[in-house]
Amino acid sequence: MPFETTATIASFGGKLLKLAHKATSTSCEMKLNLYLPPQSSSSDKKIPVLFYLAGLTCTGDNGAEKGFLQHAASKKGIAVVYPDTSPRGLQIEGEDDAYDFGSGAGFYVDATKEPWTKGYKMYTYITEELPKALFESFKQLDGSRMSITGHSMGGHGALTIFLKNPGKYRSVSAFAPISNPINCPWGEKAFKGYFGEDQQQKWKEHDASELVKQWKGPLDILIDVSQTNVYLNSQLTIPSHPAQGTGDNFYKQGQLLPENFVKAAKESGDDKKVELRMQPDYDHSYFFISTFADDHVEHAAKHLLAW
Amino acid sequence: MPFETTATIASFGGKLLKLAHKATSTSCEMKLNLYLPPQSSSSDKKIPVLFYLAGLTCTGDNGAEKGFLQHAASKKGIAVVYPDTSPRGLQIEGEDDAYDFGSGAGFYVDATKEPWTKGYKMYTYITEELPKALFESFKQLDGSRMSITGHSMGGHGALTIFLKNPGKYRSVSAFAPISNPINCPWGEKAFKGYFGEDQQQKWKEHDASELVKQWKGPLDILIDVSQTNVYLNSQLTIPSHPAQGTGDNFYKQGQLLPENFVKAAKESGDDKKVELRMQPDYDHSYFFISTFADDHVEHAAKHLLAW
Repeated sequence: MPFETTATIASFGGKLLKLAHKATSTSCEMKLNLYLPPQSSSSDKKIPVLFYLAGLTCTGDNGAEKGFLQHAASKKGIAVVYPDTSPRGLQIEGEDDAYDFGSGAGFYVDATKEPWTKGYKMYTYITEELPKALFESFKQLDGSRMSITGHSMGGHGALTIFLKNPGKYRSVSAFAPISNPINCPWGEKAFKGYFGEDQQQKWKEHDASELVKQWKGPLDILIDVSQTNVYLNSQLTIPSHPAQGTGDNFYKQGQLLPENFVKAAKESGDDKKVELRMQPDYDHSYFFISTFADDHVEHAAKHLLAW
Repeated sequence: MPFETTATIASFGGKLLKLAHKATSTSCEMKLNLYLPPQSSSSDKKIPVLFYLAGLTCTGDNGAEKGFLQHAASKKGIAVVYPDTSPRGLQIEGEDDAYDFGSGAGFYVDATKEPWTKGYKMYTYITEELPKALFESFKQLDGSRMSITGHSMGGHGALTIFLKNPGKYRSVSAFAPISNPINCPWGEKAFKGYFGEDQQQKWKEHDASELVKQWKGPLDILIDVSQTNVYLNSQLTIPSHPAQGTGDNFYKQGQLLPENFVKAAKESGDDKKVELRMQPDYDHSYFFISTFADDHVEHAAKHLLAW
């Protein structure tokens, strides 16, 4: 379906478009932000695209407002897509009951368990419907040059989507990704809800540490992990979350498990370069993302602009 | 009064402190953000300070999250102070009735009209109480090297505070400042409310275009003005505001009047260099501020690091 442009806002010399479209896979209207760098209007050459998948509780707005990916993207000539994190308003019982399941927590999978099969198809939306719609509507975007990144739940989304689709994305990076969801509380809750408790094979198909074992050939992945403090993904507070205000955090709680991913990558063969950078003092918020955003855009640019 | 540090968050290699203190001038607890660049812990040398005054509806959080000033400040070794825009919770009748008067709209003046004299003393707070408290508590800050900038109402604050205190601030710049408040609806409403309708002399004492006429000697001011679209100062929407969604904006409505300031500066003598950059396509939001934040920090650094 074509996009409605609800706002066009200049940002770092380019344009941020606030878009909405009726999506079939998610059975609802989906909102997103699309950043077009200055090169998209000044050059005849098509521009590559970086997808940024946001974390729990976020919409497509948070990254666009506070992630500062536009800063480097405007210099490199890369478009950035900021999708939403779930369908909205499907009127499924319980969809708004928790911050880590349902609305704002689609986990970038296609649910196979009722009642979530009605629209909780974020995997299909992100990998198929959204790019198809974007490349049809915005002819200046180069559908043959995509990279993907994301934060926390979105880091899980980026890693798994990259690993499940060899050749589709030129590169992947992640900010504090949930790296081994089948072994952490967030992942277990989500996969139990969206797939069912007994669907272990399905769980593994959306676990980055499992998927990387199957990857053939070289890999070049940048992962930054924040090590301290509380959760400030969006403006929303998460009153029920145990980490709030304790000084503990999701990494220490074992929600992220990036070492498991690195270990699996190493054990599965040579030339799998996963650069894992532990960042002391940083928390799980956009202050962390914005600080390292330039590096992640640079990582994508290395692959997107290589040929 | 000493500060309570409610959070310490790493950002661009430095630390963002969320502070609160009981302020005498404003008769309430004031919250603010203080960004300490990496140089503040790695160097014995004291570091200079840039004050960022926010616009209508904002708190000290918005600029810290979405203004992107930390990006350049971390490289230059400059601390950034993000104060609130008014007292809070004084229980004055009507203080929360409008987005452009009372809470979130202190206009950086000391009210002389009842009932606002009870705490609406943002001029004294910003120019005296806050810096005194900061320099007493944070010995790594250099009280002899301050610059000031701000957005919209905060741009008015920055310009007037700079011009009323020769020698106190090394430089000033502004994003879309209200430059001639005695001749625009926002300023007229605020000054009528805080000073009274018949206090024309008082009004002029807080009007940048009047004050610049009295300035002796050279000036070097950077002003960026966004020319289009709607108001998105903070996450709050302003349902009553006529500009919302019309495609018109505050510059076109005559709320900012930066040309009046430039004209007054020019007429009052030589060597008053006001660089006014009109920015087409940009709106009045933090997307505008973040885009030009590097330039404004650079402008301050030119003066703060000169000697």
